[in-house]
Amino acid sequence: MSLETTILDRILPSACDVERLKTCAQEVVEEIKDDNLVKEYNAEIMLVGSVAKGTFLSNPDIDIFILFPTSTDRSHLQKIGLEIGKKHLPTYEERYAEHPYTHGTRGGYEMDIVPCYKLESTENIKCAVDRTPFHTKYIKTNMDSEMKDQVRLLKQFAKGIGVYGAESKTEGISGYLTELLIIRYGNFNKVIEAASRWNLGQVVFPNNEKKFKGDPLIVHDPVDSNRNVASAVSIQSFSKFIYAAKEYLKNPSERFFFPNVRTTYSLDGIQHYISKRNTEVIIIELDKPNLIDDNLYPQIRKTLEGVITTLQKENISAIDSDYEVKETSVKFAIEIETLELPSIKQHYGPPVWSENAPSFINKWKSNTFEPYVENGLWKVIIRRDDTNVVSYLNKNLKSSALGKDFRELKGMKITSGKDAICEDNAVILSKMIDKRMSWEVV
Amino acid sequence: MSLETTILDRILPSACDVERLKTCAQEVVEEIKDDNLVKEYNAEIMLVGSVAKGTFLSNPDIDIFILFPTSTDRSHLQKIGLEIGKKHLPTYEERYAEHPYTHGTRGGYEMDIVPCYKLESTENIKCAVDRTPFHTKYIKTNMDSEMKDQVRLLKQFAKGIGVYGAESKTEGISGYLTELLIIRYGNFNKVIEAASRWNLGQVVFPNNEKKFKGDPLIVHDPVDSNRNVASAVSIQSFSKFIYAAKEYLKNPSERFFFPNVRTTYSLDGIQHYISKRNTEVIIIELDKPNLIDDNLYPQIRKTLEGVITTLQKENISAIDSDYEVKETSVKFAIEIETLELPSIKQHYGPPVWSENAPSFINKWKSNTFEPYVENGLWKVIIRRDDTNVVSYLNKNLKSSALGKDFRELKGMKITSGKDAICEDNAVILSKMIDKRMSWEVV
Repeated sequence: MSLETTILDRILPSACDVERLKTCAQEVVEEIKDDNLVKEYNAEIMLVGSVAKGTFLSNPDIDIFILFPTSTDRSHLQKIGLEIGKKHLPTYEERYAEHPYTHGTRGGYEMDIVPCYKLESTENIKCAVDRTPFHTKYIKTNMDSEMKDQVRLLKQFAKGIGVYGAESKTEGISGYLTELLIIRYGNFNKVIEAASRWNLGQVVFPNNEKKFKGDPLIVHDPVDSNRNVASAVSIQSFSKFIYAAKEYLKNPSERFFFPNVRTTYSLDGIQHYISKRNTEVIIIELDKPNLIDDNLYPQIRKTLEGVITTLQKENISAIDSDYEVKETSVKFAIEIETLELPSIKQHYGPPVWSENAPSFINKWKSNTFEPYVENGLWKVIIRRDDTNVVSYLNKNLKSSALGKDFRELKGMKITSGKDAICEDNAVILSKMIDKRMSWEVV
Repeated sequence: MSLETTILDRILPSACDVERLKTCAQEVVEEIKDDNLVKEYNAEIMLVGSVAKGTFLSNPDIDIFILFPTSTDRSHLQKIGLEIGKKHLPTYEERYAEHPYTHGTRGGYEMDIVPCYKLESTENIKCAVDRTPFHTKYIKTNMDSEMKDQVRLLKQFAKGIGVYGAESKTEGISGYLTELLIIRYGNFNKVIEAASRWNLGQVVFPNNEKKFKGDPLIVHDPVDSNRNVASAVSIQSFSKFIYAAKEYLKNPSERFFFPNVRTTYSLDGIQHYISKRNTEVIIIELDKPNLIDDNLYPQIRKTLEGVITTLQKENISAIDSDYEVKETSVKFAIEIETLELPSIKQHYGPPVWSENAPSFINKWKSNTFEPYVENGLWKVIIRRDDTNVVSYLNKNLKSSALGKDFRELKGMKITSGKDAICEDNAVILSKMIDKRMSWEVV
C-alpha cells in the first residue's frame, strides 16, 4: 500500500460520518429555505465550502450562504442575514469579515451562516464573500471524486508542514487554492512535483494580464481573473511548501502529513544553545490587544519589525527573532550580538549647500567632538550617555513603527541577559531556537 | 585698506620680479623659435599658462608649447618635442602626461616644454594638451588687468583653504577654472558670494546640452563644450569651497588666504582624544608604489575604500579614516568601535527555489547551528574561530578591492589598540583627528 493510500485511509471521513454531516447540513439548509424572512426577501440558500464541494477533512465547518437579490439594501442584507442566522443556530456569536455573519454550533458541527449577494457573474462583486458561491460551483463542476481525495491529501500535507490556511496567522494556502492546484496538475503527487520546481513569482493558472507582481505565488482565480487566489501566501509559507515538496520527493514519509509534536526545550538546553552562540536575548512582553486574529497577527509582525528597525538604527543587527501569543500578552524575542551600544554614534547632518546646514552646525558646535564635513555632508560624532540596549529600547520604542494597537506599549516588560532565560520565557525561546521543519521533529 | 587689497599687496609679484620672469620666458621662446628642428618641422612656439595670461602668483612655472602641424606623425612629435626641450633646459627630466614632455629649470624658474598639435579649432583635439593654447588665447582675449588681480586673489583663497589644483592629490580647482569663474562673476567677491549659494551639480557657464551629470560642479569649457573644466573637483573640495565662501562672507580674514600652520598633536593629546571616544584605531602601513602622484593618489583612495568595504562586510563601520603618504610607505588609519568581532556571523545562502540550494544545505548541514529558511532564503549562523579584527584583515585584505599597486600588500604592517598610538603614528592620527578647516587653525 502506497504512503498516499495509507494517509488517505487515515484522513478520509467514514461513510457514516459523511452521512451524518450531510444530513445535518441538508436539514439546516431546508429549514432556512422555509424561513419567512428568506421568502419575504426572495433570498436563495446555498451550501458552500468544503462540505458542499466534498473536499473536507474530518470535522469540517458547515458554511451556509444566504444569497440576497442585488436590489437588497446592504444594511438590510446585514441585519436580516444576522437575524436569520441566529434563528437557526442554538448557540451563536456575531463575527465580522467584510460584513457581519453568524457563527455557531448545531448538531455537533461548527456552522457559519453568511449573507451575500446573488450575482450573475463575478464582474459586479460587491464583497469578497460574493465570490464564494462561484468558487463552490466551479469546483463542483470541475472535480470528480478521485480528485477530491487528492485535495484531501494536499490539504493534510499543507496542514502537516504548517502552511494550511489563508488567514493572517498562517499566511498560507487556502482550501480553494489546494483544489485549484489539484485541478491544474491532476493529483497530489503532480502538485508536489511541480511545487518542487517552482520559482519566486510562480504563475499557476496563467492569464494574459501581467498582474500581482511581487506576490510569491500567482494563481489567477478562474471565476475572477482580477484576483490572485494565492495572494495571502507569504514568502515564508511559499518557500516552506517548495522545500517540503523537494524533501518529500526525496524521502516521502507520513511525518509530512502528521508531524511529531514539538516539545519545548529545557531551560538548560536553551541556556547551552545561547552560550554556544555567545549572544544576548531580549524579551519584550506587551499586553495583547483585544483583536480578532486576522487583525492581531499583522500587527504583531509589524511590531516585531518595528523593534528590529529601531535596533538597526543603532547598527544592531537582529540575528534571530520570534513572537509568542499568550492568553493576555504577546512576547517578542530578539537575539542580538551584545547588550552594549558603542560609546559614540555617527550622526550625519545636511549637506554643506543645504539651507539647514547652519542650524545643524549651531546645534552641535559645542559638542565634545566638533562637526565636520565628510563628502559634502555635515557629520558629528556624539557620545552616548547610555550605552545599554534595553534602556535605548525603553526610550525609543514609543516612537517606533509598531502595530497600531501596540503603540502605547501597555504592560511593557523588557528582560534581557540572564534574566531573559527563565522558565517563563522557555516557550518563546524554544520556538525561536528550534529551526527544524515540522517533518524533521523526531 | 580692504582685506582684499591687503592680500593683493602681499601676493602681487613685484614689477621687478615680473620683469625678470618675462625676460627669461621671452628669451627661451625666442631661442626655441630659432631652433633648426623647429624650423624644419614648421612648428610654432607659444608661451602659455599663467605666465602668458598674467594671472600667476609668485614663482610660477613657465610653460612653453611647441605646436606642430597636424601632418606631423605623433611619434615624431613626441620624439622631436623631447629633443627640443632637452636642448634648451640646462637641467631636465622627462615627464609624462598623455604624452612625454620636458621638465627642467632655467634662470631659477621651473619650466615645462610641451609638444602639441596646432589646430584651427578644438573640434579635432587629439590630446588634452592641444586645448591649452586655446585656453591661453581665450583668457588673454577676455580678461583685463584688473580681473587678473582678482584671479590671483581667488587662486590664493583656493590655495589657503586647500582646494587649489586639479591634480589627483587635491581634486580641486585648476588655475583655468579660477580664471573662468572671475570672467563669469566679475570679481573675487562676486565669485565668493555666488559660491556661498551653490548647490550640488551647480552649473556655471551653462550650455544647452545636459551633460556631466554626477559632477558636483559643472563649468562648460568656452573653447570646447564637450569638456567640464571642473571635472576634477571632488565633492569634498566642492563642499569645502562652498563652506569657506559662506564663512568668509560672515567673517572675512586673511586666514582664508594664509592659514596658520597645522601642528601635529602630541601623543598625549591623541591618546586623550581616542579614550574620550572609547574607540579603537587600526594603522595599516604598506610600501609606497613607485608612481607619479596622479596615479598614486587615486590608488591610495581606492585602497582605503577597499579596506573600509572589507570591514563593512563584517558589519564594522569605519567611524573615521585617513591616509598619510610618507617617503617610502603609505599609512592608512581607520577608527572603529571595537577590535573584537562577534562570536557568530549571519551567513545568507541562495533562496529555497534556487538550484544552488542543495549544495548550500550540504555544505552547512554539519555546522554547529543548522541552516534554516528565513523569508525564502537559506541562512546559517556560523561560529567564528577568530574574533580579532586585525587577524580578519590579515586574512582578507589580499582579496579586497585595493588600488592595483597595493594589492600585493608589500611591506604590510598592521598595528592596533595601544600599539597604534605611538610617536611613529602621531602624524597620521593627528591628521585624522584634526577636523578644523585650514582657516580655523589658530
